Amino acid sequence: MPTIAILAQGAMGAGIARRLVERGATVLTSLAGRSAASARRAAEAGMRDATPAELAAADIFLSIVPPAEAPATASLLAPALAAAPRRAVYADCNAISPETAREVAASVAPSGAVFVDAGIIGGPPRPDGYTPVLYVSGEAAGRLLALNAYGLDVRVTPGGIGAASALKMSYAGITKGLVALSSAMMLAAARGGAAEGLRAELERSQPQLLAWFQRMVPPMYDKAYRWVGEMEEIAEFTGPQAAGIYEAIAEFYRGMAADRAGPQQQVAALEAFLGRK
Amino acid sequence: MPTIAILAQGAMGAGIARRLVERGATVLTSLAGRSAASARRAAEAGMRDATPAELAAADIFLSIVPPAEAPATASLLAPALAAAPRRAVYADCNAISPETAREVAASVAPSGAVFVDAGIIGGPPRPDGYTPVLYVSGEAAGRLLALNAYGLDVRVTPGGIGAASALKMSYAGITKGLVALSSAMMLAAARGGAAEGLRAELERSQPQLLAWFQRMVPPMYDKAYRWVGEMEEIAEFTGPQAAGIYEAIAEFYRGMAADRAGPQQQVAALEAFLGRK
Repeated sequence: MPTIAILAQGAMGAGIARRLVERGATVLTSLAGRSAASARRAAEAGMRDATPAELAAADIFLSIVPPAEAPATASLLAPALAAAPRRAVYADCNAISPETAREVAASVAPSGAVFVDAGIIGGPPRPDGYTPVLYVSGEAAGRLLALNAYGLDVRVTPGGIGAASALKMSYAGITKGLVALSSAMMLAAARGGAAEGLRAELERSQPQLLAWFQRMVPPMYDKAYRWVGEMEEIAEFTGPQAAGIYEAIAEFYRGMAADRAGPQQQVAALEAFLGRK
Repeated sequence: MPTIAILAQGAMGAGIARRLVERGATVLTSLAGRSAASARRAAEAGMRDATPAELAAADIFLSIVPPAEAPATASLLAPALAAAPRRAVYADCNAISPETAREVAASVAPSGAVFVDAGIIGGPPRPDGYTPVLYVSGEAAGRLLALNAYGLDVRVTPGGIGAASALKMSYAGITKGLVALSSAMMLAAARGGAAEGLRAELERSQPQLLAWFQRMVPPMYDKAYRWVGEMEEIAEFTGPQAAGIYEAIAEFYRGMAADRAGPQQQVAALEAFLGRK
């Protein structure tokens, strides 16, 4: 029975922990410096608060944090990894560019831990059985497959360290990019008096895209603030040819997050367009 | 039987002219200063080269030119419009922002012609019966409906002058924007060693989007150079919230056009990703 350390306790980290615990795995975490909400999510998921010395007993470390915190999380865990009685596996599961993933790998290397590049596609595991896919790459990627016996859906993707991150970046660049484009155009059409016309034309010639927008745009309102950092990672990932597109999409999500926290005018306009009110 | 003047003789203009001529309408154009290719397309479509004085006899003027030429085309035709024995209809059918459409309307106004805002969604009419939709808006928009008796698909969209342009801009912003995003991410995935992984994940979780890319991306290679100006119009249309996204997409298409005209490395990478070779 593997012992898994999951940093930190967000919706995804806690959701994955809960699934592992339900299937019989032991999941450690560290609540040092964390909020009451994090502690509650950790307790509900069956995660055990562990000291740095206790963390060193974990076989597999999963870093599941906001993109900007990925390097710091690796540095924070380096002592525990170095103190481990055997070589642990450190999997960075975050939405970071392949370049950032290689930086994290380099910072983990001195501890003796084995680095695995990983990327999660989908939302947190749910009680109804839904499970996101955890893509893993690199020489030691196969070691994460042990988690499939505990309710996860781990799949090895070819291409070495960086490939799982590149897969996550490119997939998110398409899906979250399209959420931004469609939202921006629905808002612009509404301002230009063409909301009714655009909606009718989408129904006529792009009914699958319209259905996709109706499914994918509303969940964005509450996540826009988190997507800013992810879009900035994608800008780094894509290189000069398209970096400007994703820097501008990051700005768009910054504006959406401010609207969600404040006037909610854009949220209301999108809801009206999508026919949800 | 209406007499229609169509400026100029590109694929769309000539395609619409051919449909009208086949259904019995008279289509005038002006070949002054145009290329041999334009003259050939005009002749094949049954368009008649007309002097400025002859053009004045047209009931309906359709401006179908690259976005950047829309204002100049209106200025060029102003004398013919002013000389017309009755108030002609001038429909700007180009992919221009509502603001540009209003500028064109203002430049047409002194001639006494009635301005209609219009936007074409779809490709040129084809012999197999395919017909794009010509959205029209503004007080006099209904006068274009006469063309439906001659094989076109004209639809009035609500919202006044600017609304048809806003509809065209927002629709193209979604569809041509998505072609850019998906192309950029397929290219980045390929550079990052994740092409196989991304394609497998799209097949698994976004099969409709993948099919859409397979249908919509390849026709872009030859049109990318034309889409640059259209994306710049969309940047103007969308306002500060998303202008940067479309300015960057215009740059992306500029790069794709250069690749198409030169090394074709990106075209080859996209074709390989999409499984077309």
